[in-house]
Amino acid sequence: MNYQRFFEDAISKLKTERRYRVFADLDRDASSFPRALWRRGGDHAEEVVIWCSNDYLCMGRHPAVIEAMSRAAVRHGVGAGGTRNISGTNHPLVELEAELADLHGKDAALVFTSGWISNLAAISTIGDLLPDCLILSDELNHNSMIEGVRRSKAERRIFRHNDLAHLEELLIEAGPARAKFIVFESLYSMNGDIAPIADIADLAQRYNAMTYMDEVHAVGLYGPRGGGIAERDDVMRRIDVIEGTLAKGFGALGGYIAADAAIIDAVRSYSPSFIFTTALPPAVASAARTAVKLLKGAEGAELRAQHQRQAMLTKHALSAAGLPVMPNSSHIVPVFVGDAELCKRATDMLLERHSIYIQPINYPTVAKGTERLRITPGPLHTDAHIVDLVEGLVDVWKSLKLPFAERPNVIEFRPQPDARCTLPDFKRAAE
Amino acid sequence: MNYQRFFEDAISKLKTERRYRVFADLDRDASSFPRALWRRGGDHAEEVVIWCSNDYLCMGRHPAVIEAMSRAAVRHGVGAGGTRNISGTNHPLVELEAELADLHGKDAALVFTSGWISNLAAISTIGDLLPDCLILSDELNHNSMIEGVRRSKAERRIFRHNDLAHLEELLIEAGPARAKFIVFESLYSMNGDIAPIADIADLAQRYNAMTYMDEVHAVGLYGPRGGGIAERDDVMRRIDVIEGTLAKGFGALGGYIAADAAIIDAVRSYSPSFIFTTALPPAVASAARTAVKLLKGAEGAELRAQHQRQAMLTKHALSAAGLPVMPNSSHIVPVFVGDAELCKRATDMLLERHSIYIQPINYPTVAKGTERLRITPGPLHTDAHIVDLVEGLVDVWKSLKLPFAERPNVIEFRPQPDARCTLPDFKRAAE
Repeated sequence: MNYQRFFEDAISKLKTERRYRVFADLDRDASSFPRALWRRGGDHAEEVVIWCSNDYLCMGRHPAVIEAMSRAAVRHGVGAGGTRNISGTNHPLVELEAELADLHGKDAALVFTSGWISNLAAISTIGDLLPDCLILSDELNHNSMIEGVRRSKAERRIFRHNDLAHLEELLIEAGPARAKFIVFESLYSMNGDIAPIADIADLAQRYNAMTYMDEVHAVGLYGPRGGGIAERDDVMRRIDVIEGTLAKGFGALGGYIAADAAIIDAVRSYSPSFIFTTALPPAVASAARTAVKLLKGAEGAELRAQHQRQAMLTKHALSAAGLPVMPNSSHIVPVFVGDAELCKRATDMLLERHSIYIQPINYPTVAKGTERLRITPGPLHTDAHIVDLVEGLVDVWKSLKLPFAERPNVIEFRPQPDARCTLPDFKRAAE
Repeated sequence: MNYQRFFEDAISKLKTERRYRVFADLDRDASSFPRALWRRGGDHAEEVVIWCSNDYLCMGRHPAVIEAMSRAAVRHGVGAGGTRNISGTNHPLVELEAELADLHGKDAALVFTSGWISNLAAISTIGDLLPDCLILSDELNHNSMIEGVRRSKAERRIFRHNDLAHLEELLIEAGPARAKFIVFESLYSMNGDIAPIADIADLAQRYNAMTYMDEVHAVGLYGPRGGGIAERDDVMRRIDVIEGTLAKGFGALGGYIAADAAIIDAVRSYSPSFIFTTALPPAVASAARTAVKLLKGAEGAELRAQHQRQAMLTKHALSAAGLPVMPNSSHIVPVFVGDAELCKRATDMLLERHSIYIQPINYPTVAKGTERLRITPGPLHTDAHIVDLVEGLVDVWKSLKLPFAERPNVIEFRPQPDARCTLPDFKRAAE
């Protein structure tokens, strides 16, 4: 066994398959986001516009959120210094958990160091605790949920994506007595489609199943207080466990679950991936809490309106130009390519020629043959940015002879009822 | 299935077994660490001295480290905004990885959001990539390593703790052709004992095995530049993968591996728990890098000397008082109790009567029957703190009729050759 050669070959294989990923070294400037410096190696850097950030509402550069981080760092120091149990529970983290429980209308919340870990920990722990549990998992669930399902000793069945009939079939098959745990997402981030939450809750109630819903691409972004799609659709209390992230809409780092006290206490007490990990630093907790609080109020409502407006406008403008926008009813703007190599070349060309940074989305993030660009407009993308984006994409599509939509799938631009401004004249929200 | 009742019962079971954990809500003050405010609920708070932090060198409250976090937050914003591949690679993180590679004398390093995840990700990915791999794992490995071993499809064999003969037996049994991956720790944190690293490296070389060593309780703390036990023992280049944390000796958050370029590239490219997680925020990366850099230099050497001196003094003082210190050659000071209930009562009494905060270490962190206090002296624990600790523990031991050591196991206090001060008069390092 030549280990060195082996690993070199594993990398060569990725390069041959055009799946080798190069990370763009970005120097973000909080004062000019979504612009950033792209460091190309050595001292060479050039300005680009980021169009693929999951800091959806730009809360990571919000002055109050930054201030909260700095203040907490000065007050409490940088790290938590231990696991939650062994000296790591810090007061800002306790306050953050109360804020999140309130956001979702639940008894309690539990914060993890990432959304990935919160799914792994919570799903596997609940699946393991419930005797003879059957986990019913949507086929398009995120990797972290799949890892949680696999990590659990529970039996699992996969239901077709958002397919209520299939889910019901599996629930009936399991019988009323057996513990059943339905695991799904509110908003699937690579397609941007939304789950029929109320219908799933109906099925869960009818067949006595527990429900777990990942809202990571929705918390902060939807609902009157930023509670997510479940808040918007008024079904929060009908979902047993809501999982969210602090790293996207809230602009910080970490993940969490919110649920009844007993469920939170059980995950807190039984999950190794929670027990044996250093707690989130007070400065991160404080920044995240500030973002959550802000987004519960009037400023949040305004940012959400502006975010939706820019996302709808981007979809409208790209569709009108004939680009193959994959339709959905969320803020995610996927543009279909369908080939890993072309997807990579398209994004390289966008960066080189147009200073537009969008990462190609290839396998394993999406299935082979469904490669795409995934564009995430934010409230600070201006109308000029959107115009540049359309021009850049049209140029790249023509240069690479990528297919335009057969019938320009024009997506109507409908400003929100509370929008302060309309199409050609809208302003940046936070200037 | 009554889910609500089920989870309530799961919690009751823990309470009956005296394994229910209550997290102390701590309000750390960076300017007075290791002192902190313990919030007992409501507005009631009282000052305590923390004796169980893994912020071993107090770097989390180092002014330069705090300053680095604040500056980076202002400059770059709070969160990374995406996974490493999708807009989350930030320049401070790239610089941190270079700093860590240099620390361990390796080609490259890869940072994760926690040490727990770095072990899960790296061990499972390497175990899965190597064809027909046999993982040989020390029986006392940390939970995160066990999770990594289990997550992998590779066959695994457990060798008795630090038992070279047993490890060799298993290596011979596997045969020379098969891929073999030895997974162990340099310093086992609950006992404080140290692995025979050079001997394990010898065996690995003789039988053509790859080695992976967790140095989380040693990085920053040992070696001329804080490279860990492997640096101290001059065996860094003989270990294939060194795993470390940014959350203990470096006072921040996150974990990492350092290794040859091809290994790092393979883990970076193939590990789902790396690929699908938001990157560490620039402010955390910047703080961690500052700590790593500081600890490479003269200030680091001084802090390490002071840390060792205070740890040795604590051991000496507790042993001289007849308390059952579990002997080891590291900075960890475990004091044996051997009963979960008494361990909990001892720490409750320390907190109530003496304002000393030490968390009981019970199952599952250690085996049942080996419950203990785990004391971690730091460079900012003064001689007065140590005197208080001895008095508090002796009082608790008498009150609970806990057994004292049969023969006072006096551990000699040997100041380091470069110590600036000796027993009764030493000063706080950072005043």
